[in-house]
Amino acid sequence: MNDRVPEAVIRRLPSYYRQLREMETAGIAKVSSKQLAEKMRVTPSQIRQDINCFGTFGRQGVGYKVSDLKGHIAEILGVDASHHMVIVGSGNIGTAIACYPTFQRDGFVTVAMFDNDPARVGASVGDLKVRHVDEMESFIRNNRVDIGVICVPPANAQEVLDQLISCGIHAIWNFAPVDLSRDRNTILVNTHMSESLQVLSYKLTHQDFR
Amino acid sequence: MNDRVPEAVIRRLPSYYRQLREMETAGIAKVSSKQLAEKMRVTPSQIRQDINCFGTFGRQGVGYKVSDLKGHIAEILGVDASHHMVIVGSGNIGTAIACYPTFQRDGFVTVAMFDNDPARVGASVGDLKVRHVDEMESFIRNNRVDIGVICVPPANAQEVLDQLISCGIHAIWNFAPVDLSRDRNTILVNTHMSESLQVLSYKLTHQDFR
Repeated sequence: MNDRVPEAVIRRLPSYYRQLREMETAGIAKVSSKQLAEKMRVTPSQIRQDINCFGTFGRQGVGYKVSDLKGHIAEILGVDASHHMVIVGSGNIGTAIACYPTFQRDGFVTVAMFDNDPARVGASVGDLKVRHVDEMESFIRNNRVDIGVICVPPANAQEVLDQLISCGIHAIWNFAPVDLSRDRNTILVNTHMSESLQVLSYKLTHQDFR
Repeated sequence: MNDRVPEAVIRRLPSYYRQLREMETAGIAKVSSKQLAEKMRVTPSQIRQDINCFGTFGRQGVGYKVSDLKGHIAEILGVDASHHMVIVGSGNIGTAIACYPTFQRDGFVTVAMFDNDPARVGASVGDLKVRHVDEMESFIRNNRVDIGVICVPPANAQEVLDQLISCGIHAIWNFAPVDLSRDRNTILVNTHMSESLQVLSYKLTHQDFR
C-alpha cells in the first residue's frame, strides 16, 4: 500500500493530524470533508482521495468522527508509538530541536545529545547533558534509539550520517545544508532552512501569493 | 510567467542553486542536464523542463555554463538582491535563525529581533540586542524591512502576523505550528518542525525509503 501513497499525500498527513487534534481540543466531534477541506485549503474531493489512500474510512454523507480519524492518522504516521532521538551537534539548531516544546507530547523523545567540541561537552541543554561524540556508538548500542538528528556543519554531516548508520540507525533528520549519500535502507528527511527562505524570496520577487 | 510555474519547480530551485554554487566552488565550468539530474536525483528531462519554465537557457547538446545558470537562478530566486529580516521571538528557534551561518552570505540580513518577555529584552543574540516588541512598529516604519520571521508560541503567532502586516511587511516566514490567516497580499512560508518529524515517522513506520 505505502509504495503507492504519493509523497504529496504523506506531506499533508501531519497537517490533517494537527487540524484534527485542534478540533478535538475544541470539542468538535464530527467533521465533513468540506469542513476539513476549508481548514486545509484543498478541495473536499482531495480530502476524500487522500484519506482513501489508507483504506476505506468514514461514510459518504456522514463525515468523519474527529477522534477516530485522528487516531487513524496517528497510526498511519506512526505517532501513536514513541520514538527515541539522538541529536548530533549542540549548537543553536540542535538546542532548538532538543527543547522544542511539542516533540515530547508527540512521542519524540530526545534521549541524548552529542558534540565534538570539548567546550560543549558537559553543558546542559534542557534536561540533557551534552556528551562527547566518541560516546555515541556505545550509547546507541546500549539504548533504544530510532532517529538520528544531524545538526552539525555541512563539512561534518556525511561523516556523522555514516557513523549513525554504522550504529544501526536508519532514520535520519538532517539540518545540514548539504546532500548526503546513504544506502537504500536509510530514510532521510532534510530540513534546509535556506531553501525555505529562498522560496519566500522567490515569491516576494515574483509577488506569488500562493 | 510566474503564475504558471508549479510549486514543485519553485521548491527545487534552491537545490539547483546550491548544487551550482558547489560546482562553481569546485571549479566546474560546465554541466549537462544529465550531470545535474544525477546530483538532483531527478531525470534529465525534468531538469530541462524546470529550467525552461524561466525562458530558454542553455543549448541542446552543449549543456549549461555553471556560473551563468547559477546567476540566472539567483536572479529568479531573488537572492541576487539583499533582504532585511526582523525576527519576532528570541527563543531557541529565533536564536538559531538569527545566528544561521549562511543567511548573511545569501543576502538575508537580520536587522532586528523582538520579544515581549522583559527578561529577554536587552539580551545579546549574535550581533543583535533583543528589543521589546512594542518598538517593532516604529522600527519597521523607520528601517527597510522585507521579511518578518515568526518564532513565537502558536497562541501569539496570529497577533504577531497581524502586527507585521499592519506595519507593511508582506512576506512572512512562520515557525509557529499553527495555520495563520492572512490577506491575499501576504506571502506566507511555513516551516513546521513537527511535520518534518512526522513525515520521518511515517517513513520509518512504513519503511518507505524515498
